[in-house]
Amino acid sequence: MSISIMTQELLALNISQHQAAMQRFVAQHPLADCAEALSMLLDEQQLHSQDVRDLLRLLPLDQQAALFGYFSLPWQQAIAEQLAADELAHLSERMAHDERADLLALLEPTLKQQVLQQMDSRERQDIERLASYPSDSIGAVMTTDFAVLDATLTIEDAMHHLRSIAAERETIYQAYVVDEQQKLKGTVSLRDMLVAEPSQRIADIMTQALIFVWVDELQSVAAQAISKYDLLAIPVLDLQNRLVGIVTYDDAMDVAEDEADRHVHKAGAVDFSGNLKDATIGLMYRKRVFWLVLLVFGNIFSGAGIAYFEDTIQTYVALVFFLPLLIDSGGNAGSQSATLMVRALATGEVVAKDWAKMLSKELFISALLGVTMALAVSLLGFWRGGAEIALVVAITMQIVVIVGSVVGMSLPFILNKLRFDPASASAPLITTIADAIGVIIYFSVATMILDFPPMA
Amino acid sequence: MSISIMTQELLALNISQHQAAMQRFVAQHPLADCAEALSMLLDEQQLHSQDVRDLLRLLPLDQQAALFGYFSLPWQQAIAEQLAADELAHLSERMAHDERADLLALLEPTLKQQVLQQMDSRERQDIERLASYPSDSIGAVMTTDFAVLDATLTIEDAMHHLRSIAAERETIYQAYVVDEQQKLKGTVSLRDMLVAEPSQRIADIMTQALIFVWVDELQSVAAQAISKYDLLAIPVLDLQNRLVGIVTYDDAMDVAEDEADRHVHKAGAVDFSGNLKDATIGLMYRKRVFWLVLLVFGNIFSGAGIAYFEDTIQTYVALVFFLPLLIDSGGNAGSQSATLMVRALATGEVVAKDWAKMLSKELFISALLGVTMALAVSLLGFWRGGAEIALVVAITMQIVVIVGSVVGMSLPFILNKLRFDPASASAPLITTIADAIGVIIYFSVATMILDFPPMA
Repeated sequence: MSISIMTQELLALNISQHQAAMQRFVAQHPLADCAEALSMLLDEQQLHSQDVRDLLRLLPLDQQAALFGYFSLPWQQAIAEQLAADELAHLSERMAHDERADLLALLEPTLKQQVLQQMDSRERQDIERLASYPSDSIGAVMTTDFAVLDATLTIEDAMHHLRSIAAERETIYQAYVVDEQQKLKGTVSLRDMLVAEPSQRIADIMTQALIFVWVDELQSVAAQAISKYDLLAIPVLDLQNRLVGIVTYDDAMDVAEDEADRHVHKAGAVDFSGNLKDATIGLMYRKRVFWLVLLVFGNIFSGAGIAYFEDTIQTYVALVFFLPLLIDSGGNAGSQSATLMVRALATGEVVAKDWAKMLSKELFISALLGVTMALAVSLLGFWRGGAEIALVVAITMQIVVIVGSVVGMSLPFILNKLRFDPASASAPLITTIADAIGVIIYFSVATMILDFPPMA
Repeated sequence: MSISIMTQELLALNISQHQAAMQRFVAQHPLADCAEALSMLLDEQQLHSQDVRDLLRLLPLDQQAALFGYFSLPWQQAIAEQLAADELAHLSERMAHDERADLLALLEPTLKQQVLQQMDSRERQDIERLASYPSDSIGAVMTTDFAVLDATLTIEDAMHHLRSIAAERETIYQAYVVDEQQKLKGTVSLRDMLVAEPSQRIADIMTQALIFVWVDELQSVAAQAISKYDLLAIPVLDLQNRLVGIVTYDDAMDVAEDEADRHVHKAGAVDFSGNLKDATIGLMYRKRVFWLVLLVFGNIFSGAGIAYFEDTIQTYVALVFFLPLLIDSGGNAGSQSATLMVRALATGEVVAKDWAKMLSKELFISALLGVTMALAVSLLGFWRGGAEIALVVAITMQIVVIVGSVVGMSLPFILNKLRFDPASASAPLITTIADAIGVIIYFSVATMILDFPPMA
């Protein structure tokens, strides 16, 4: 059923008056869709956070926590502020550990303290520890409710144990074996346990834990490993080699999606990841203005190039006709190369030492592209200004396409080498650089061929 | 262990002479890493496909199939061609159903027939059916080896059944309940089965199947649903409502990654997804030349604008100094808006009917950006040419930033409406359009303020 039909149904039901109907509604739709429909009504102010609170109160605690978890963090916060501290504490106990740490970090300090006081000390410590990791680290996205098994257990006893904790753990399909110092000894999948003999011991069937990540690494490292090794979850170790959490595949998918957003946006010179519809005008202004103003000053170099050749231009003003075309072409070819290279570096498909190999390939490709585009532009040149102009624009085109491509493909490597984000080599930045180079190439070629003396 | 150390170890071991050591090596490293190290040696021609075949022959069939599945399709093909038809048939029987269909489609017809003849007729039909779906449809990425349970089974019997098929199924953590016509009635997770009483029936605990996709939908639809609903796998129905396959989360992650690649690349005007290092010069030329040449012709509009104002330029050649700066700024602001909007449309965060709302927001944001940039450029203008020039460039900047932004944010919506891919609104395309508009705005403003008569 479409979300918009769901919103109409929800509007038709008055939450406090149609309690049974509301419960049925939630039972009959995927919780993610219920949350989406409710969020849409909240966005449009047709419902208020108190209404959603009233709805949550109609549901059993587990369903409450699951539905609540599908709201965006700002709406979670708004709804949480409508709940009593003890209600919120109960709800938090059933939430995914990483999500509740994120929510509590946003709450007003007094409310947060009240909620924490209602929770038992282990849960409280867990929340405080998760909140202490930097926001882009694996620690901030991992969950601490993983299943641990003793290596000496029989499969039968282990299954019995998993059954007893199934409701509270984020996943029971992967369990982890640790020693007394919490050091990770191995992993065992529920599938392997199912096919083993009930009398076998966990130690006999567990896999040596070869794949793990560190708690302080970037989240994208965990997401890439989960994707590469086709894992359900990856164990997270602290600097003392102790198992402190796991990252599950669904969180990894969210991380990968945010990463992709960030890459796409950076390619367009906006450093933003989040919900575009929710972003305020002020936020978007701040995310965009830096690069735009920087590029204005970058463009002074093109201007300076033009000023240097002012007399050439004055004498042969028809050259200006081809100016945007030629400098843009260098920028376009460079944007293509930069985009390909930034993404390949980000996904690890290409690494720093591949630079020379990629460069020689780029030279070939851009030479071919240059020949094609020089042919196209020389026709235009001939039609506008005759054979000499055709020659000038063809030679210029060939050079700017090669130079633009080489700049475009090299800049991400250079930024990477200097420990900047290669993704900053955005199309607009490459365009600005290629413009300045293009102006100089164009008028130099023109001056040589058309035999005008260059003067400042 | 790093992949490059693994490659050195592999090179030190002669596969035919050190069989036991090779088996140990494979047992001690994640299979994905073994495949990566072997692929690297194949790429560098330090190993040949026969060597990998010899290595595979040392492994038990299940491990063989798992390792083989981690190679890229071209290497799978090269290795497969070194195997005897019956070996390949046995290997195929253990491979993921979607992957073996992809591989067999690539084989030389005689070999493919020989392999198919060695397989039983059900498997053969499965391969032929999977191969019949369009390459971007869900049918081409789904797997047909899912677990089916009868609704009348007790949990105890169902667990027993799952145990018996665990080795051959892609996942047993989600099982599917169908009726006699293969219509999907419900889904049941292994977790739910574990916490249920052994004497309960599947029908009592199964979830009504609300979430599914159609076999002919785009793969990104399945990936988005898996991510949204946090699923391990999503059921796939044919047009007769029959359950024909499932898409698992790990395939969904690959699909999402390819999609993200495609978006990033399209933003840079390259329509390419795949491995950049493996791509030939000819392929990359073809992927890039279309947009570059098209944009050359697009730039004729900027040229025509310039030609129209030739006399203005001739009289006041200093105007050319600001030309790249002003037209680029419109393009840069537009690239930012287009990038944000293309991605938001692709992820479903923004839909067609949001256009008016997004437009009014964009007008505010771009007006603010325009004021900032006009201030920056007016300083430059004053320094280069005095108060009048400062006024001309400031007014032009304010207009081009607003117009560029509006074009950038609207074009993806328009392309979407016309059923083109919104991602074609790349930074280079927006730059080209913004250039043409920028030229006209710039010289019109200049003509008005500086009082030059425009003449063709």
